[in-house]
Amino acid sequence: MKVALAYSGGLDTSVCIPLLKERYGVDEVISVVVDVGQPVEDLERANRLGEEIADHHIVIDAKEEFVEDYIFPLIKANGNYEGYVLGTAIARPLIAKKVAEVAFREKADAVAHGCTGKGNDQLRFEAVFRAMGLKVIAPMRELGLKRSEEIEYAIKKGLKINVGKDTPWSIDENLWSRSIEGGMLEDPAFIPPEEIFAWTKSPEDAPDSPLILKITFEEGVPVALDGEALRGYDLIVRLNMIAGEHGVGRTDIIEDRVLGLKARENYEHPAATVLLSAHRDLEQIVLTRNELRFKMSVDAAWSELAYQGLVLDPLYDDLLAFIDETQKRVSGDVTVKLYKGSLQVLGRYARTALYREDWVSFDTAVEIDPADAGGFSKFHGLQARLYRSSI
Amino acid sequence: MKVALAYSGGLDTSVCIPLLKERYGVDEVISVVVDVGQPVEDLERANRLGEEIADHHIVIDAKEEFVEDYIFPLIKANGNYEGYVLGTAIARPLIAKKVAEVAFREKADAVAHGCTGKGNDQLRFEAVFRAMGLKVIAPMRELGLKRSEEIEYAIKKGLKINVGKDTPWSIDENLWSRSIEGGMLEDPAFIPPEEIFAWTKSPEDAPDSPLILKITFEEGVPVALDGEALRGYDLIVRLNMIAGEHGVGRTDIIEDRVLGLKARENYEHPAATVLLSAHRDLEQIVLTRNELRFKMSVDAAWSELAYQGLVLDPLYDDLLAFIDETQKRVSGDVTVKLYKGSLQVLGRYARTALYREDWVSFDTAVEIDPADAGGFSKFHGLQARLYRSSI
Amino acid sequence: MKVALAYSGGLDTSVCIPLLKERYGVDEVISVVVDVGQPVEDLERANRLGEEIADHHIVIDAKEEFVEDYIFPLIKANGNYEGYVLGTAIARPLIAKKVAEVAFREKADAVAHGCTGKGNDQLRFEAVFRAMGLKVIAPMRELGLKRSEEIEYAIKKGLKINVGKDTPWSIDENLWSRSIEGGMLEDPAFIPPEEIFAWTKSPEDAPDSPLILKITFEEGVPVALDGEALRGYDLIVRLNMIAGEHGVGRTDIIEDRVLGLKARENYEHPAATVLLSAHRDLEQIVLTRNELRFKMSVDAAWSELAYQGLVLDPLYDDLLAFIDETQKRVSGDVTVKLYKGSLQVLGRYARTALYREDWVSFDTAVEIDPADAGGFSKFHGLQARLYRSSI
Amino acid sequence: MKVALAYSGGLDTSVCIPLLKERYGVDEVISVVVDVGQPVEDLERANRLGEEIADHHIVIDAKEEFVEDYIFPLIKANGNYEGYVLGTAIARPLIAKKVAEVAFREKADAVAHGCTGKGNDQLRFEAVFRAMGLKVIAPMRELGLKRSEEIEYAIKKGLKINVGKDTPWSIDENLWSRSIEGGMLEDPAFIPPEEIFAWTKSPEDAPDSPLILKITFEEGVPVALDGEALRGYDLIVRLNMIAGEHGVGRTDIIEDRVLGLKARENYEHPAATVLLSAHRDLEQIVLTRNELRFKMSVDAAWSELAYQGLVLDPLYDDLLAFIDETQKRVSGDVTVKLYKGSLQVLGRYARTALYREDWVSFDTAVEIDPADAGGFSKFHGLQARLYRSSI
Repeated sequence: MKVALAYSGGLDTSVCIPLLKERYGVDEVISVVVDVGQPVEDLERANRLGEEIADHHIVIDAKEEFVEDYIFPLIKANGNYEGYVLGTAIARPLIAKKVAEVAFREKADAVAHGCTGKGNDQLRFEAVFRAMGLKVIAPMRELGLKRSEEIEYAIKKGLKINVGKDTPWSIDENLWSRSIEGGMLEDPAFIPPEEIFAWTKSPEDAPDSPLILKITFEEGVPVALDGEALRGYDLIVRLNMIAGEHGVGRTDIIEDRVLGLKARENYEHPAATVLLSAHRDLEQIVLTRNELRFKMSVDAAWSELAYQGLVLDPLYDDLLAFIDETQKRVSGDVTVKLYKGSLQVLGRYARTALYREDWVSFDTAVEIDPADAGGFSKFHGLQARLYRSSI
Repeated sequence: MKVALAYSGGLDTSVCIPLLKERYGVDEVISVVVDVGQPVEDLERANRLGEEIADHHIVIDAKEEFVEDYIFPLIKANGNYEGYVLGTAIARPLIAKKVAEVAFREKADAVAHGCTGKGNDQLRFEAVFRAMGLKVIAPMRELGLKRSEEIEYAIKKGLKINVGKDTPWSIDENLWSRSIEGGMLEDPAFIPPEEIFAWTKSPEDAPDSPLILKITFEEGVPVALDGEALRGYDLIVRLNMIAGEHGVGRTDIIEDRVLGLKARENYEHPAATVLLSAHRDLEQIVLTRNELRFKMSVDAAWSELAYQGLVLDPLYDDLLAFIDETQKRVSGDVTVKLYKGSLQVLGRYARTALYREDWVSFDTAVEIDPADAGGFSKFHGLQARLYRSSI
Repeated sequence: MKVALAYSGGLDTSVCIPLLKERYGVDEVISVVVDVGQPVEDLERANRLGEEIADHHIVIDAKEEFVEDYIFPLIKANGNYEGYVLGTAIARPLIAKKVAEVAFREKADAVAHGCTGKGNDQLRFEAVFRAMGLKVIAPMRELGLKRSEEIEYAIKKGLKINVGKDTPWSIDENLWSRSIEGGMLEDPAFIPPEEIFAWTKSPEDAPDSPLILKITFEEGVPVALDGEALRGYDLIVRLNMIAGEHGVGRTDIIEDRVLGLKARENYEHPAATVLLSAHRDLEQIVLTRNELRFKMSVDAAWSELAYQGLVLDPLYDDLLAFIDETQKRVSGDVTVKLYKGSLQVLGRYARTALYREDWVSFDTAVEIDPADAGGFSKFHGLQARLYRSSI
Repeated sequence: MKVALAYSGGLDTSVCIPLLKERYGVDEVISVVVDVGQPVEDLERANRLGEEIADHHIVIDAKEEFVEDYIFPLIKANGNYEGYVLGTAIARPLIAKKVAEVAFREKADAVAHGCTGKGNDQLRFEAVFRAMGLKVIAPMRELGLKRSEEIEYAIKKGLKINVGKDTPWSIDENLWSRSIEGGMLEDPAFIPPEEIFAWTKSPEDAPDSPLILKITFEEGVPVALDGEALRGYDLIVRLNMIAGEHGVGRTDIIEDRVLGLKARENYEHPAATVLLSAHRDLEQIVLTRNELRFKMSVDAAWSELAYQGLVLDPLYDDLLAFIDETQKRVSGDVTVKLYKGSLQVLGRYARTALYREDWVSFDTAVEIDPADAGGFSKFHGLQARLYRSSI
């Protein structure tokens, strides 16, 4: 029996390798690391370990695909869940697809992941795995090991895992977002200590001078910073540094997990915060009111699917068809100010703006005059009049 | 013929008084000033002028009613329009109702307002006036005077209006919000100069130390700051000062007016910004996911009606019935940090929080274990599997 | 150990009684029959059997409560799921609550039901049971007996169940609705034979003369037929007979079950069909357009919760607060014609109708004239003009 | 000055021709008849009259375009307004576009229509005309002639209009729909006399034998009846006859007009009624639940725009992008029964159906068993449990 394992190099996925063999009768474990912009040291450790303990180790660079097929649609969809920019969620389906591709190519009998039964990621991985017709093994959830048992087992198996440095919280990182949860942070009233943050400076430590930055969009996606054209990946890396330096991009939220539990999460996503603010502002000037209103519900539905990892539900593509149609005109510049944790939109320009100075002034060219507004006013609230006269 | 005029003391409503007499054959003009928290000097000037040029002048203190019947529901409804906190809009129906009450009491034949044909306020005033069965006169819109003609007329009539100081923008203020529009600000790309702001310090000029503030809510409305119980009006006045001092509460937006034009608006609303952020955060921990999702659409519908001044459409009360039902449990504390223009929620506590530490850990007390999550996972995305196997 | 069992007198719930004792170590089984308008012969059989085989048998007449607390809200909410009138679903929470009340009163250690793992009812029962803090036993689902094993077991235990007459489909009946599913009906293309229907005549066999019927509503609920005041229960019984006689009230649908499977269902619900058509028609004339639009989404959300049995989610009550507020004016008469399976609304009258003949004609009384419509027209589609001139 | 007039051959548009010359100083009136499937005799009369009294008369056959570009999208969108199938509305933008094209080709200075200020059609025509950049003249609305004055004027001008036969109601017909309104029908309680109907037999007079009919769809549009492939236009003509013969396709409704008035309308649309019922049923078996839920709101938004004639708002195309994406799988057969005014879906088949018999039975192939449902059930309504334990 051959299994492709979604591998991260952490404790959970590492102990999965011997567990799959001992407890599930697996003959060959292929550890698959998918690079979606994790820190280089995490990737290197994962590769070192995977090479050593798995039967076969595969690394897939999916950074470009992550930007083009997941982050860009997210920007177009103003993707957010309960008010915060989606981050961890959108990398999972891509990782699952890449692991599944390995499984098909290598004729594996099943895929495996190291998620426990508490969170969202088990659901996101398995939704993709199962829709692709694969058998799933989830050792961490199915065997129900406690953390101390895991560590003991890892030591017994001689796994070179950094289990000594037991951080009090659990961290997930990709190009787009860094999440911190667990430990004392679970108490919604506990004020997060400064040490949990890695991508963003504390506002108090940020530079004393604000940064004014112009972001250029083409058809809904960012293409330049201050006029310098940049490829998606580079633009996001640079913007993470710039905005993080100015203390922009922290979120602290109580989040409804898919299974129904509420959990406290902290996020850092500097580039995401800036890009989504700017993108929304640009939409506001180029889309019609009817489009803006309806797109709110489309964006919300897209975000719900993305959060749940349901990117293979056909609704996901239906929604993107709508979104892409709207984004054809979302091109232009937005100027923002970053300063000690605050983000302010200062101005925006779009060639296709629906704003027209001459129309605001009832110019005769458009044949609308104040009397027309008087006519309109007669009908505004007409049914409230009928209602009040009927009761 | 007797007319009750919604009076502000400004140029437009002041010239309405002689215009109503000369052009509409009105015998008696009652100027009605409704105090919704405008600056004291504006009120005093309005009263001085009204006393002088109208046949009868009436001042109505509606501050308490404004807080209880308009601002509090707005907070419960997270009232915002296209992303900014509603402000100017919600005062209009109250002003209209108060003027209408005067008209009924004084047996006036009609009501009048000084709005032009370009904006939203004509529609908000008239929706209420007409639903209450009153005849409406709108001299500014109907006579189509240019601003220069207005000033000339005012001078001719000897109106003591401060027409010399011709500010390049138009300002509206009430307890909850200050809006600035017009002039060069109309260009969406024009970066607003610091001088347009009056309630908020520039983030750069704000104190170098952050302020940590605890806001207490009871059934959806704020009742205390840092533990000190305060009546609504006092709490808002104080919070406007505190948050404004820290540079929090500026909004720059392209807004879709009711008539369909897009206009650039700048707002200052420090207390509003803080209270809505805190309120949303508290809802997140006490309302069920089902409630949060659906309330988003209720809040949006409420906000749309409020923006349009359609508070007499029965839907307005239907929505409030829903909202009030949800707010019964929205009691608790939210701790925020204000610092140089940034606002960060740090923690929150509610007795009725749906967050429960023991549940997050699959405690046996609730009879949920990891295997149950495995069962759930089998159904997650089930139809996407059916779909993929059907094509 | 003592258990209260939701009992129907059928095979599944009957074998649960010995199973609970033999397989779960239960000492005392209380069989609870809740009367929500099932056929009298079913109730009698259930009581006979329960008395015989359970340790304690309890019958609860919940018909009145079913009408007042479940059917009436459903009518107000135009409750339908994927296009058909909700039926089976709404009885489940009431049955669960009544069984739970017995469990609390009798100090039972748990509650049990006889649902399998395929359908919706397990979820509806358990959502209520668990929210009320009760331990749940589901023998049919947990023991996974096949139908043949069940029958064998029943015979072995000497249960006097009519297992010989093995109908090819599964039927559920209450006052409001009769559902038929299973067997050959599962094939979506199979045309249902006439024999599956019991409440409705075939249209071809219905009377050759149409019936004209006037239904009177007060605050959203039906109170009279052809002017004769009737209590809810009596009105529904009578209308089921009348409309069923005329062949009205059959539905054949592919339905998405909660777990995600699509299943073919046939329903008979004559009174429900007539009452919901009439109620919607009446709303159309008394509610404002804004109310009608928004209530569509409220009704849909209510129906989704009701279908899933989630009546204890606080959103359920929030939605009812909205709905009740709207129904205050939904009083009046609707005249329908029933004829050989067809239902036609012929006319309607409401004192609080927003329809006003004089307003349709731009009567001067309301101060609206054709020129005002011209003014309105200038703004209709304004942003589409801006859009077309911007591209 | 040259004007292109949307011409129908009726009284209103006919008197517009001399009125445009006498009252608006028009030199040349081009009467444009757009054939969207009106009765042949109406078209012939319109052409005869147009040839005689206009300076230039143009007939445009738009039947095919009407079917392909308006009716087919409507079917895909399940287009209905407040519960009835859209009909009159969707022809207006097409007529307006065709008239506008004539105006551009003939270098006309303006376009004109004969609508009064009461209804929706003025708004639908003008939304298209203005978005296309044309000047609009609306003599009937602007001159405010009473009907008797119109007739007098027509006689004076020698217009050969059938003004003697003064039907008590106003009728509009195209390929898809026939509407009847006005006169005594305006009273919502007035029961429509049989004589207002022309396309549908009274159910009582319909054949005594039901008709079973199989309708085949491909990608959301009907392509065959009982297996016989038919082009769209022919299919609709035939289905109008078949269903009309069986008394299917009458609607009586109180409708909210765009301006806010409620008006009573009667419609006949036999083919539309059958096609939309069948289409919805087919969608139910091929689309995922997520798609069905969200498409409801897309369909509603599409219908609202279509009703208002706002087909040039870019949202219209955005919505169609979503709809077309969903319809790729909406192919299959639906069998319906038509009988004396009633329409019943009997069965349906689709190759891409998400219904799968083996899955309903928890087949091991899909690795779902009853215990998984038990796991799911633990999470169903979880937050309601948290809620109940928190209060």
